[in-house]
Amino acid sequence: MTFANVGTLGVQPGKAEELVAILTRRNPEMEQAGCLVYEVGVSQEEPDTVCVVELWESTEAHRASLQLPSVQAAIGEARPLLTGEMGGYRFEVAGSPLRD
Amino acid sequence: MTFANVGTLGVQPGKAEELVAILTRRNPEMEQAGCLVYEVGVSQEEPDTVCVVELWESTEAHRASLQLPSVQAAIGEARPLLTGEMGGYRFEVAGSPLRD
Repeated sequence: MTFANVGTLGVQPGKAEELVAILTRRNPEMEQAGCLVYEVGVSQEEPDTVCVVELWESTEAHRASLQLPSVQAAIGEARPLLTGEMGGYRFEVAGSPLRD
Repeated sequence: MTFANVGTLGVQPGKAEELVAILTRRNPEMEQAGCLVYEVGVSQEEPDTVCVVELWESTEAHRASLQLPSVQAAIGEARPLLTGEMGGYRFEVAGSPLRD
Protein backbone atom coordinates (compact mmCIF):
# COMPACT_ATOMS: atom_id res chain seq x y z
CA MET A 1 0.00 0.00 0.00
CA THR A 2 1.39 3.38 -0.98
CA PHE A 3 2.69 5.30 2.02
CA ALA A 4 2.59 9.10 2.22
CA ASN A 5 5.06 10.98 4.40
CA VAL A 6 4.53 14.70 4.59
CA GLY A 7 6.81 16.83 6.65
CA THR A 8 7.88 20.33 7.59
CA LEU A 9 11.38 21.19 8.77
CA GLY A 10 12.13 24.43 10.61
CA VAL A 11 15.42 25.94 9.46
CA GLN A 12 17.73 28.62 10.80
CA PRO A 13 16.80 32.04 9.39
CA GLY A 14 17.84 32.33 5.73
CA LYS A 15 18.94 28.69 5.43
CA ALA A 16 15.89 27.30 3.58
CA GLU A 17 17.55 27.31 0.15
CA GLU A 18 20.61 25.53 1.53
CA LEU A 19 18.42 22.74 2.95
CA VAL A 20 16.41 22.54 -0.29
CA ALA A 21 19.70 22.05 -2.19
CA ILE A 22 20.64 19.10 0.04
CA LEU A 23 17.22 17.47 -0.13
CA THR A 24 16.90 17.85 -3.91
CA ARG A 25 20.38 16.56 -4.79
CA ARG A 26 19.90 13.79 -7.42
CA ASN A 27 19.83 10.40 -5.68
CA PRO A 28 19.03 7.28 -7.78
CA GLU A 29 19.11 5.16 -4.58
CA MET A 30 15.73 6.67 -3.68
CA GLU A 31 13.84 5.24 -6.67
CA GLN A 32 15.61 1.91 -6.17
CA ALA A 33 14.41 1.97 -2.55
CA GLY A 34 10.79 2.44 -3.67
CA CYS A 35 10.35 6.19 -3.62
CA LEU A 36 7.54 7.20 -6.00
CA VAL A 37 7.29 10.94 -5.34
CA TYR A 38 9.61 13.26 -3.38
CA GLU A 39 8.90 16.96 -3.79
CA VAL A 40 10.63 19.71 -1.84
CA GLY A 41 9.84 23.38 -1.46
CA VAL A 42 9.69 26.35 0.89
CA SER A 43 6.39 26.89 2.70
CA GLN A 44 4.43 29.80 1.26
CA GLU A 45 3.26 30.71 4.72
CA GLU A 46 6.62 30.39 6.56
CA PRO A 47 9.84 31.28 4.70
CA ASP A 48 11.98 29.44 7.29
CA THR A 49 10.09 26.18 6.87
CA VAL A 50 10.97 23.60 4.24
CA CYS A 51 8.24 21.19 3.20
CA VAL A 52 8.62 17.69 1.86
CA VAL A 53 5.97 15.52 0.22
CA GLU A 54 6.91 11.88 -0.20
CA LEU A 55 5.09 8.85 -1.56
CA TRP A 56 6.64 5.42 -1.12
CA GLU A 57 5.72 1.94 -2.33
CA SER A 58 5.15 0.95 1.29
CA THR A 59 5.71 1.99 4.89
CA GLU A 60 8.57 -0.53 5.07
CA ALA A 61 10.24 0.91 1.95
CA HIS A 62 10.20 4.34 3.54
CA ARG A 63 11.54 3.06 6.86
CA ALA A 64 14.34 1.09 5.14
CA SER A 65 15.34 4.12 3.08
CA LEU A 66 16.35 5.97 6.22
CA GLN A 67 19.29 3.56 6.56
CA LEU A 68 20.62 4.26 3.06
CA PRO A 69 24.17 5.70 3.27
CA SER A 70 23.19 8.58 0.95
CA VAL A 71 20.16 9.43 3.13
CA GLN A 72 22.18 9.20 6.35
CA ALA A 73 24.78 11.54 4.80
CA ALA A 74 22.09 14.06 3.78
CA ILE A 75 20.56 13.97 7.27
CA GLY A 76 24.00 14.64 8.79
CA GLU A 77 24.64 17.49 6.37
CA ALA A 78 21.22 19.04 7.03
CA ARG A 79 21.23 18.78 10.82
CA PRO A 80 23.17 22.02 11.52
CA LEU A 81 20.63 23.96 9.43
CA LEU A 82 17.62 22.72 11.41
CA THR A 83 15.94 24.41 14.36
CA GLY A 84 14.54 21.07 15.56
CA GLU A 85 10.99 22.19 14.87
CA MET A 86 9.32 19.50 12.77
CA GLY A 87 5.77 18.74 11.73
CA GLY A 88 3.85 16.60 9.34
CA TYR A 89 1.86 13.46 9.17
CA ARG A 90 1.88 10.05 7.63
CA PHE A 91 -0.86 7.99 6.06
CA GLU A 92 -1.43 4.95 3.93
CA VAL A 93 -3.06 6.02 0.69
CA ALA A 94 -6.72 4.99 0.55
CA GLY A 95 -7.30 6.21 -2.99
CA SER A 96 -7.31 9.04 -5.52
CA PRO A 97 -9.89 10.72 -7.78
CA LEU A 98 -7.28 10.42 -10.55
CA ARG A 99 -7.69 6.65 -10.83
CA ASP A 100 -10.36 4.00 -10.34
CA MET B 1 5.92 25.65 -11.54
CA THR B 2 4.45 22.59 -9.82
CA PHE B 3 2.33 23.56 -6.84
CA ALA B 4 1.97 21.34 -3.76
CA ASN B 5 -1.11 21.57 -1.58
CA VAL B 6 -1.03 19.43 1.53
CA GLY B 7 -3.96 19.43 3.88
CA THR B 8 -5.55 17.86 6.91
CA LEU B 9 -9.30 17.85 7.52
CA GLY B 10 -10.77 17.15 10.93
CA VAL B 11 -13.86 14.97 10.68
CA GLN B 12 -16.67 14.07 13.03
CA PRO B 13 -15.82 10.93 15.04
CA GLY B 14 -16.05 7.83 12.85
CA LYS B 15 -16.67 9.75 9.63
CA ALA B 16 -13.18 9.53 8.11
CA GLU B 17 -14.00 6.70 5.71
CA GLU B 18 -17.08 8.54 4.49
CA LEU B 19 -14.99 11.62 3.68
CA VAL B 20 -12.31 9.49 2.02
CA ALA B 21 -15.01 7.97 -0.22
CA ILE B 22 -16.13 11.43 -1.37
CA LEU B 23 -12.58 12.70 -1.98
CA THR B 24 -11.48 9.58 -3.88
CA ARG B 25 -14.50 9.34 -6.17
CA ARG B 26 -13.17 9.11 -9.75
CA ASN B 27 -13.13 12.59 -11.32
CA PRO B 28 -11.57 13.03 -14.79
CA GLU B 29 -12.12 16.80 -14.53
CA MET B 30 -9.19 16.92 -12.09
CA GLU B 31 -6.57 15.73 -14.56
CA GLN B 32 -8.04 18.02 -17.21
CA ALA B 33 -7.68 20.88 -14.73
CA GLY B 34 -3.96 20.11 -14.23
CA CYS B 35 -3.94 17.84 -11.22
CA LEU B 36 -0.81 15.66 -11.25
CA VAL B 37 -1.12 13.86 -7.91
CA TYR B 38 -4.05 13.65 -5.48
CA GLU B 39 -3.67 11.08 -2.72
CA VAL B 40 -6.07 10.69 0.18
CA GLY B 41 -5.77 8.76 3.42
CA VAL B 42 -6.46 8.71 7.14
CA SER B 43 -3.72 10.12 9.38
CA GLN B 44 -1.81 7.38 11.19
CA GLU B 45 -1.54 9.62 14.21
CA GLU B 46 -5.16 10.87 14.34
CA PRO B 47 -7.97 8.54 13.19
CA ASP B 48 -10.42 11.45 12.86
CA THR B 49 -8.15 13.39 10.50
CA VAL B 50 -8.16 12.88 6.74
CA CYS B 51 -5.03 13.88 4.87
CA VAL B 52 -4.72 15.01 1.27
CA VAL B 53 -1.55 15.40 -0.78
CA GLU B 54 -1.99 17.26 -4.05
CA LEU B 55 0.41 18.30 -6.79
CA TRP B 56 -0.83 20.66 -9.50
CA GLU B 57 0.70 22.01 -12.70
CA SER B 58 0.58 25.48 -11.15
CA THR B 59 -0.89 27.53 -8.33
CA GLU B 60 -3.43 28.94 -10.80
CA ALA B 61 -4.51 25.45 -11.92
CA HIS B 62 -5.20 24.53 -8.32
CA ARG B 63 -7.09 27.76 -7.62
CA ALA B 64 -9.22 27.36 -10.80
CA SER B 65 -10.05 23.76 -9.90
CA LEU B 66 -11.91 24.91 -6.82
CA GLN B 67 -14.57 26.37 -9.14
CA LEU B 68 -15.16 23.10 -10.98
CA PRO B 69 -18.79 21.95 -10.55
CA SER B 70 -17.64 18.48 -9.48
CA VAL B 71 -15.28 19.94 -6.86
CA GLN B 72 -17.94 22.36 -5.58
CA ALA B 73 -20.35 19.40 -5.27
CA ALA B 74 -17.80 17.33 -3.34
CA ILE B 75 -17.08 20.25 -0.98
CA GLY B 76 -20.82 20.62 -0.32
CA GLU B 77 -21.22 16.91 0.28
CA ALA B 78 -18.21 16.80 2.62
CA ARG B 79 -19.03 19.89 4.69
CA PRO B 80 -21.42 18.17 7.17
CA LEU B 81 -18.69 15.62 7.98
CA LEU B 82 -16.07 18.24 8.88
CA THR B 83 -15.29 19.66 12.31
CA GLY B 84 -13.83 22.81 10.78
CA GLU B 85 -10.36 21.96 12.01
CA MET B 86 -7.99 22.22 9.05
CA GLY B 87 -4.25 22.28 8.63
CA GLY B 88 -1.62 21.96 5.99
CA TYR B 89 0.69 24.02 3.90
CA ARG B 90 1.37 24.99 0.36
CA PHE B 91 4.59 25.37 -1.56
CA GLU B 92 5.94 25.71 -5.06
CA VAL B 93 8.12 22.71 -5.80
CA ALA B 94 11.80 23.64 -5.88
CA GLY B 95 13.02 20.20 -6.91
CA SER B 96 13.30 16.47 -6.23
CA PRO B 97 16.11 13.94 -5.73
CA LEU B 98 14.22 11.72 -8.20
CA ARG B 99 15.10 13.93 -11.19
CA ASP B 100 17.84 16.25 -12.34
